[in-house]
Amino acid sequence: MFANQRRAAGETMKIGILGSGDVAKALAKGFAGRGDEVKLGTRDSKKLADWLKTAGPKASVGSFADAAKFGELVVLATLWTGTENAIKLADPTNFAGKVVIDATNPLDFSRGMPPRLALGHTDSGGEQIQRWLPDARVVKAFNIVGHAHMVHPQFPGGPPDMFIAGNDAAAKETVNGILKSFGWQGSIDVGGIEGARLLEPLCILWVIYGATTGGWNHAFKMVKK
Amino acid sequence: MFANQRRAAGETMKIGILGSGDVAKALAKGFAGRGDEVKLGTRDSKKLADWLKTAGPKASVGSFADAAKFGELVVLATLWTGTENAIKLADPTNFAGKVVIDATNPLDFSRGMPPRLALGHTDSGGEQIQRWLPDARVVKAFNIVGHAHMVHPQFPGGPPDMFIAGNDAAAKETVNGILKSFGWQGSIDVGGIEGARLLEPLCILWVIYGATTGGWNHAFKMVKK
Repeated sequence: MFANQRRAAGETMKIGILGSGDVAKALAKGFAGRGDEVKLGTRDSKKLADWLKTAGPKASVGSFADAAKFGELVVLATLWTGTENAIKLADPTNFAGKVVIDATNPLDFSRGMPPRLALGHTDSGGEQIQRWLPDARVVKAFNIVGHAHMVHPQFPGGPPDMFIAGNDAAAKETVNGILKSFGWQGSIDVGGIEGARLLEPLCILWVIYGATTGGWNHAFKMVKK
Repeated sequence: MFANQRRAAGETMKIGILGSGDVAKALAKGFAGRGDEVKLGTRDSKKLADWLKTAGPKASVGSFADAAKFGELVVLATLWTGTENAIKLADPTNFAGKVVIDATNPLDFSRGMPPRLALGHTDSGGEQIQRWLPDARVVKAFNIVGHAHMVHPQFPGGPPDMFIAGNDAAAKETVNGILKSFGWQGSIDVGGIEGARLLEPLCILWVIYGATTGGWNHAFKMVKK
């Protein structure tokens, strides 16, 4: 039975998970905790021998194809660089019609940390502005929150978080000081102006969240412990 | 004096702001509240006549060039579609060496709401996965938080927020149910699988935040009131 058919509350599912890393194990534990049967798919089942001993009677291990075939719902939890090959080995026909949760991220570590996105994301407004103003020291800031909350933002649980990006360290220090004087807890520096590729999507998410919830008094915060 | 020179605490600045909308006014109010002198630049100063009456003695209005020339620090708070022209009218040489805060977002409303990003952002891992699995119903999920917090996330102030994207409404409903059973407050649906372009950058921000703060127990939350 495919997962698109409505299930009675409490009915369990068969879950196939491609991957053998921390994400695969964390989600396997979550599904098993709901009572679901879970099969992890890997190229090397020996890697999961220790895990399997502690994973309980609902968990099993197999090949990528075994896991994809087993799952009424399939989770992709592979490293990006191995994802295409894992799908090929799993056989795309084993995914047909099924819900597939894509928990991967297309990360490119070839230029060190932090990773970059390996596809798409080739430009941003911040970079365009820097090209238009080659002699200015552009800092992307204030673009991830509505105007009502740019200065002295007041939210339950304290101020939200601001991310900034720019090529000039002193300019970012200036903007960080402005943010502090505006009641923010400073800012998180995401790197050069190409970091605007990471920040401009937050504007769209901010809009979608407002449209979904019907209100415009919200802002991004990293909750932590 | 340019803003790259260190200022004594409390020393005021001259701020030029390009734009006459809510963002420009909100930031002008913030800077004036710090004691800074602020000049808003606009093509049509009549639009700001009412605002100017209430903006206090530190505020003034002029052309785009007036504001850019005036500011030791310049803020771009124009609509994206008018930004290039505003910069041309302001004369790029008036920005040379200055800190320029880019508060714009490159929004394309031509296909309705929510807006799309007008440049860059041409592809994503989620879309690639959907192309590799054309008959599956791919849902981007679980990619914006570390594995330790994917299931029953516990943070001060309640669970963080999860965003999902996918082409199939029933598949997203299934994933939303899984998220609820995993202790999340459901999820925010950002639209088709191309919404992965908005979600994958969050992974990088999550990593940068961890590297900056030296910890990995954090997650995105929309704070609201």
